[in-house]
Amino acid sequence: MAITGDQRLLKRINRMALVRLVRSQPGLSRAELSTATGLTKSTVSLLVQELIDDGWLCEDTVLVTGAIGRRPTPLRLDGRRLVMIGAELSVGSVCVVSMSLNGEVLEREECTFPLQTSAEVVLAQMAGLIATQVGRQSDARRELLGIGVGVPGAVMETSGVLAVAPNLGWRDVPVRAMLLAALTRLGVVDLPLFVQNDGDVAALGEVEFASGPVGDPLLYICLGVGVGSGVVVGGRLLLGGRGFAGEVGHMQMQADGPRCSCGRSGCAEVFIGLQAMANTLGCSIAELETRVAAGDAAALSVLTAGGRHLGVLMHNLWAMLDPAVIVLGGPACRLGKPLLGIAQETFEALARAANLETPPVTESRFGDLSVAAGAAALVLHKLLQPI
Amino acid sequence: MAITGDQRLLKRINRMALVRLVRSQPGLSRAELSTATGLTKSTVSLLVQELIDDGWLCEDTVLVTGAIGRRPTPLRLDGRRLVMIGAELSVGSVCVVSMSLNGEVLEREECTFPLQTSAEVVLAQMAGLIATQVGRQSDARRELLGIGVGVPGAVMETSGVLAVAPNLGWRDVPVRAMLLAALTRLGVVDLPLFVQNDGDVAALGEVEFASGPVGDPLLYICLGVGVGSGVVVGGRLLLGGRGFAGEVGHMQMQADGPRCSCGRSGCAEVFIGLQAMANTLGCSIAELETRVAAGDAAALSVLTAGGRHLGVLMHNLWAMLDPAVIVLGGPACRLGKPLLGIAQETFEALARAANLETPPVTESRFGDLSVAAGAAALVLHKLLQPI
Repeated sequence: MAITGDQRLLKRINRMALVRLVRSQPGLSRAELSTATGLTKSTVSLLVQELIDDGWLCEDTVLVTGAIGRRPTPLRLDGRRLVMIGAELSVGSVCVVSMSLNGEVLEREECTFPLQTSAEVVLAQMAGLIATQVGRQSDARRELLGIGVGVPGAVMETSGVLAVAPNLGWRDVPVRAMLLAALTRLGVVDLPLFVQNDGDVAALGEVEFASGPVGDPLLYICLGVGVGSGVVVGGRLLLGGRGFAGEVGHMQMQADGPRCSCGRSGCAEVFIGLQAMANTLGCSIAELETRVAAGDAAALSVLTAGGRHLGVLMHNLWAMLDPAVIVLGGPACRLGKPLLGIAQETFEALARAANLETPPVTESRFGDLSVAAGAAALVLHKLLQPI
Repeated sequence: MAITGDQRLLKRINRMALVRLVRSQPGLSRAELSTATGLTKSTVSLLVQELIDDGWLCEDTVLVTGAIGRRPTPLRLDGRRLVMIGAELSVGSVCVVSMSLNGEVLEREECTFPLQTSAEVVLAQMAGLIATQVGRQSDARRELLGIGVGVPGAVMETSGVLAVAPNLGWRDVPVRAMLLAALTRLGVVDLPLFVQNDGDVAALGEVEFASGPVGDPLLYICLGVGVGSGVVVGGRLLLGGRGFAGEVGHMQMQADGPRCSCGRSGCAEVFIGLQAMANTLGCSIAELETRVAAGDAAALSVLTAGGRHLGVLMHNLWAMLDPAVIVLGGPACRLGKPLLGIAQETFEALARAANLETPPVTESRFGDLSVAAGAAALVLHKLLQPI
């Protein structure tokens, strides 16, 4: 769609561009913003003042150095007033957080549900947790920008319908509409509400809450019962034609390998998934963690095999996507070196064989809150999107 | 970077948006363009007249139906005046084409070179072929929009440096600068010149020369001595952090598989690459094709194995990227059903096991000219890019 001459649209685009610039280069002055954007100094001054009044930006203290003349005032994101709520729907639990613009977790709340619970009941519980946080943020005189939700499955972005979530056994659930209805019943109205896949929002969390430049593309790999991913390239999510992109847990890694819950055989998830690894040992996920911590040889050998497969998966995604950074997240990261160390070694050995260097691989800064924080980042992502 | 109020920039954006709209929906009228863009009718009329004068658009004949009143005039791309030159550098040969806006191949010319030839000499030969075509297009009173080049390796897009082309044995060759110098010596100056990876430009050829809507994302898989790919998503190429994206021929398909020329083992290329398949039979690529055509059992069995691996590769890329369409191209397509049929069956069987449907898989409309035509499409892509 072409840009119309609409001045309001241009103004919004310029405002959001200024916010993104200050976020990636904290400390920029108005003059530097003018140079970077090509906007006149008076336009920048006007927009920056609005952004300060609206709670997006604030001025850093200027150090008095004794030098003559007025120093340019450094700007940065204002973490005090604007907040986003992020909610994670996972297999058996719901987690809701309130996040500042800077990616600070202001509040968190969780509840669990038995796996056979209906979508209606689960989403009503989620709405309850969200409503509580809405109230608290209001009491704290913070302003809510919107609500984001991360779900373990493919989402039709415009409708907010969860097409399929195999590990929940859900299909064609209108998550957005049901949540909006539940929130309305609780008196929470007129807030933007966005729904997206969990791996995708977790990837956004790494980008939208970064204070400084971020590798582009950024590949996030989510390691849990399921293995998923999210890619942010040029500031946008790679969603695929139907919103099904990132199903890396079902890339085939071994012809005629063990059967996967999806119906195929030899999927990555069969080797790397938390539940699959526990199943190989005939124990629960909690027991797997305990045994690994205790140095149990059988458990460590399962993790070694899983780590090798994860290393090959990381390599293959890197060959396809050439990410500038890979971020690992999800509960399986708790298994630490016996899984992630072997994966890194495998990845590096493959790259070295081809005389290539691997990109930086890091762990998510949000730990277990990657998806919930990422869901809050989805709100920011939508609001800061250029067009 | 934020958009400045610059009216020229807005005008360029609007002009190119109109061209893209008419291309994807041939027959649109000025009134329909106004509705689709939000631009006023007078602005659309003004811009359309300019685009007609400049050779981008033309008016279709209006059928006289006897109805009262003036009929809206359908618009379409003008294939008569503007041309782009596309050049393919491949392993041992150079191919140069002139293309109309509609994707019609107006001229083609080829030459071969021994593999040990220096980059300087090869690019001088390419410049010679290009200069000949520049002259012919000028004689035919066509206007040249620019030159695109597709190369078998990773390209730094802004500098036009070919970082590494393993099958040519080239490293850090400033293709763009060397070609510009050679063209200047031949009196060809002041033309935009773009250089990009062969799989990437071939993908662009499918998008920029389509007359009608195109699946988004579009995944192009290039099957030859090397196996590469290109992805166009939201109208843009997925290039990766260093321009190395799409190296799908080096995704690992089998632990401890046969050794690949890249130094790794079990890469996709070892199973699917033309040279690798010929090597397995101990024959040349030409002999492989002859033996397949003659129904030779050993040759067909190598193709069956290759086809199965190709099917798994297509499946894995689909799981990761969720393309709306997959296009297969490159010389290995000449092997036909014994390779591509098995691949399709394998892909479909994997999807069916998970109760999923595969996306449409087609063959490139440009056949052996996929990369050369795609290189011409790169020029169009650059010129039509919104910002």
